[in-house]
Amino acid sequence: MKNRPFQFAIAVLSLTVFSPVLSSGSDQLPRLRAYIESKSVSILKEFSALLSIPNIASNTDDIKRNAEVILSLLRGRGIEARLLEGEGCPPLVYGEIMNPGARRTVLFYAHYDGQPVDASQWTDDPWHPVLRDGRLEDGGRVIHASQVRFDDGRDYRLYGRSTSDDKASIVALVAALDFLKAEKTPLSINVKFLFEGEEEAGSPHLPALLEKYGDMLKADAVFICDGPVDQSGRMQVVFGVRGSIGLELTAYGPNHALHSGHYGNWAPNPIALLVNLLASMRDDDGRVLVDRFYDGVRPVAEKEKEAIRAIPDIDAKLRQEYGLAWTEAGNARLAERILLPALNFRGLRSGGVGSQAANAVVPEASASIDIRLVPDQDPEIVKQAVEEHFRKEGFHIVGQDPTREERLRYPRLIKVQWDKGYPPYRLSLDDPFGRAVIKALAGALPEPPLRLPSLGGSAPLWMFADSLRVPVLGLPIANYDNNQHGPNENIRLKNLWDGIAMFAALLSGLGTVW
Amino acid sequence: MKNRPFQFAIAVLSLTVFSPVLSSGSDQLPRLRAYIESKSVSILKEFSALLSIPNIASNTDDIKRNAEVILSLLRGRGIEARLLEGEGCPPLVYGEIMNPGARRTVLFYAHYDGQPVDASQWTDDPWHPVLRDGRLEDGGRVIHASQVRFDDGRDYRLYGRSTSDDKASIVALVAALDFLKAEKTPLSINVKFLFEGEEEAGSPHLPALLEKYGDMLKADAVFICDGPVDQSGRMQVVFGVRGSIGLELTAYGPNHALHSGHYGNWAPNPIALLVNLLASMRDDDGRVLVDRFYDGVRPVAEKEKEAIRAIPDIDAKLRQEYGLAWTEAGNARLAERILLPALNFRGLRSGGVGSQAANAVVPEASASIDIRLVPDQDPEIVKQAVEEHFRKEGFHIVGQDPTREERLRYPRLIKVQWDKGYPPYRLSLDDPFGRAVIKALAGALPEPPLRLPSLGGSAPLWMFADSLRVPVLGLPIANYDNNQHGPNENIRLKNLWDGIAMFAALLSGLGTVW
Repeated sequence: MKNRPFQFAIAVLSLTVFSPVLSSGSDQLPRLRAYIESKSVSILKEFSALLSIPNIASNTDDIKRNAEVILSLLRGRGIEARLLEGEGCPPLVYGEIMNPGARRTVLFYAHYDGQPVDASQWTDDPWHPVLRDGRLEDGGRVIHASQVRFDDGRDYRLYGRSTSDDKASIVALVAALDFLKAEKTPLSINVKFLFEGEEEAGSPHLPALLEKYGDMLKADAVFICDGPVDQSGRMQVVFGVRGSIGLELTAYGPNHALHSGHYGNWAPNPIALLVNLLASMRDDDGRVLVDRFYDGVRPVAEKEKEAIRAIPDIDAKLRQEYGLAWTEAGNARLAERILLPALNFRGLRSGGVGSQAANAVVPEASASIDIRLVPDQDPEIVKQAVEEHFRKEGFHIVGQDPTREERLRYPRLIKVQWDKGYPPYRLSLDDPFGRAVIKALAGALPEPPLRLPSLGGSAPLWMFADSLRVPVLGLPIANYDNNQHGPNENIRLKNLWDGIAMFAALLSGLGTVW
Repeated sequence: MKNRPFQFAIAVLSLTVFSPVLSSGSDQLPRLRAYIESKSVSILKEFSALLSIPNIASNTDDIKRNAEVILSLLRGRGIEARLLEGEGCPPLVYGEIMNPGARRTVLFYAHYDGQPVDASQWTDDPWHPVLRDGRLEDGGRVIHASQVRFDDGRDYRLYGRSTSDDKASIVALVAALDFLKAEKTPLSINVKFLFEGEEEAGSPHLPALLEKYGDMLKADAVFICDGPVDQSGRMQVVFGVRGSIGLELTAYGPNHALHSGHYGNWAPNPIALLVNLLASMRDDDGRVLVDRFYDGVRPVAEKEKEAIRAIPDIDAKLRQEYGLAWTEAGNARLAERILLPALNFRGLRSGGVGSQAANAVVPEASASIDIRLVPDQDPEIVKQAVEEHFRKEGFHIVGQDPTREERLRYPRLIKVQWDKGYPPYRLSLDDPFGRAVIKALAGALPEPPLRLPSLGGSAPLWMFADSLRVPVLGLPIANYDNNQHGPNENIRLKNLWDGIAMFAALLSGLGTVW
């Protein structure tokens, strides 16, 4: 118990004692709608107060204020809550609701830090949330919370940093608790909340904190409440994420720029070396040409194919939206493509282009790549395969800028620098926890949630699966066009309301079907 | 005569009347050495005064001051000189020395404008010339002109913008005239000087000015006094230059950056499209893979091969100097390689690399290319061949940023923007003018000058050949390691002295052998 310096009281919330009859999601839906209509102003007010506190992970004072406010949001609901501190990192906000009638414990994870902002790129102040009666792109006008209507067909949006990523999840969880309390509906599970303050910085301390507070965080399953819902607008349960590993490459020419007239087609051109190497790695259709790259890729299960068939096909709409005449592999479906690993070129830098172009054989050329991994690829084997590919292409690999001796010794030199990387994670659609979640959510919304075998992106699901050794699901609520990480981040209010409905259905119903 | 508003007096310089005996270069050499030793301080003083006037072509006041100072340098020698004005461009400085005993007229071209400077990158002030007793890289110390010694083995250098490119040629020409005057040696040819003020800006007005002042500029041959001598340090006569044409390419992906997790290996990756296209254009060894690219390339003549064999092979030394373990085409000789056309990738730009890398499928990827041409390639046919290659690779070519409709219509789009380009030029080694020049220079220096069939770089030789329809030769004097266009531009004093010797030998001797 050395990691738990004081004993937590088991918080039995008053709302759990009034109604012995558990509501199903579908029973709740009309009442929840009425509740949200009556409470939307206060929900948005509480949300806006939280959004007004800047939340870049590296800004210690700000991030601490965020943690304190979230702590008081939880305590204000009678939840036993505290900050879990680590060395040189923002605190985790932790809260728990233990329920004498519940057999299972579920941990809800979200994060309260956000991506850095370039305020000059935003239409409104990123730290001063603004409500609009439509998307900015569609001319949405600034309104007051009291002007929000329901079922008028408008695409209401709240703009500000972390509206979607990821403070919405925290606010929706709290609002779901408030609703159940108002309804006198008991919780069907024990609940633990864990809100992180440096997810956008890559969660460098999370594994150590999960280890340190492992006993306290013990649970039967974990929800990662982060990410976007399906592009069709349908809510979804996410059974997996891709892993990720990045690398930086630099190829070398002469030790300083040489006149391309006097030395062109004599001095080796590092851009030619680089682009010829990159071209050997993948084709235009995204097929990776590196031997052993696909080793261990788990075949897509029949159940997963079936789940994908049930997902609305919005590919043609997305192509229109993104100005694309085609997508890779003969317009293969997005939901299928993200079940495969990807090798994405994300940056090129060498010499100058346009008005910066100079007639030179440049000294070096660089590229940046991110690789997305799927189960059961091993990041270490992928690294080895890529480096082996470079060697087969005749390159000598260095980890730092080459020395003069290395330049003079190796005709083809490539600097390769890997980042730490992220393993993939995928839960079987047959997992009992996953099945129970789908069941509990069946009536939470007019349409049941989709089952997404894997999100294309990466999130620290593997960390929880690894530390706590329990099933992990992603439960996103944000709209896909939320401008996550960019300027004008926003959440669609409908997604916020749907999120509250999903959380309420799970809190009240999951324990009855699992 | 409407282009010649006043009549030029034929300037018969006093120096042409004293000695009826023409000196040969080898007779002159010891006396020239003694002359330079006695006059080096005043030569360097006059040079420094000219270098102290900033000379960016676009800065009208500065460039005008340069022209005025050069005008007075010429007039101070009794040369009939004037400024030739054009619309919206720096004036040409023109001077002529007509010699009753001469049959032939030679035009000496140089330019007095320089490349822009980034003063922060310079060790000394670029507009405040500094003399050093060695290369900066070798710890050369600042000295006064009076401290320059001869035959002490030191590598004296003068640092400042345009020391090499190209004010040295102007100063060396004037010093050669002074020497011949002091020697009472007559000129063997009529001489015309033409000093341009916007060569570094691409000589946009020069063709029109050559047309406008065509009668005045009439000559039997032209020397372009610009560029570097051989890397071995030997002086050289340049019989040709490569042409040049540049292009800018941009390939397209989604209309805004998409998350590489959620959309990677679904959304087309413009970097993959671009690098695969670039890789299809040339191999690592510089061989161009574009059909018809080599059409019309003139085979290297036996005489040219012979001339190249006579050039010291400094390739291994250059590879050491530039940190290169190899050069293209199996370490083929530089002097041979530049007789071929080249396709040089000079820039890449897309997304971010290193600390700027973001996990995105980027909207576009750009490359910049310069192509060097040799006789008898036709720039227009090369353009067509490259565009045809792009089409064969499945690309639809646009000249401007694509519209939404074009993006949605064409799976593979490439924006291609060409610059104006520059034709190549090469004079036969058998040309009588060229042979006479080699003969006149034979004894000008301890070693005869090399015959370079072609410089790798480009210079406006074709403009003069085209306008005046006479043979054109390049006559550079600058050291190859002059940092031309970059910071710490410099001239090796030995090259300045050698330049004076070459000009003196030509002025006094060329008419006797031609």
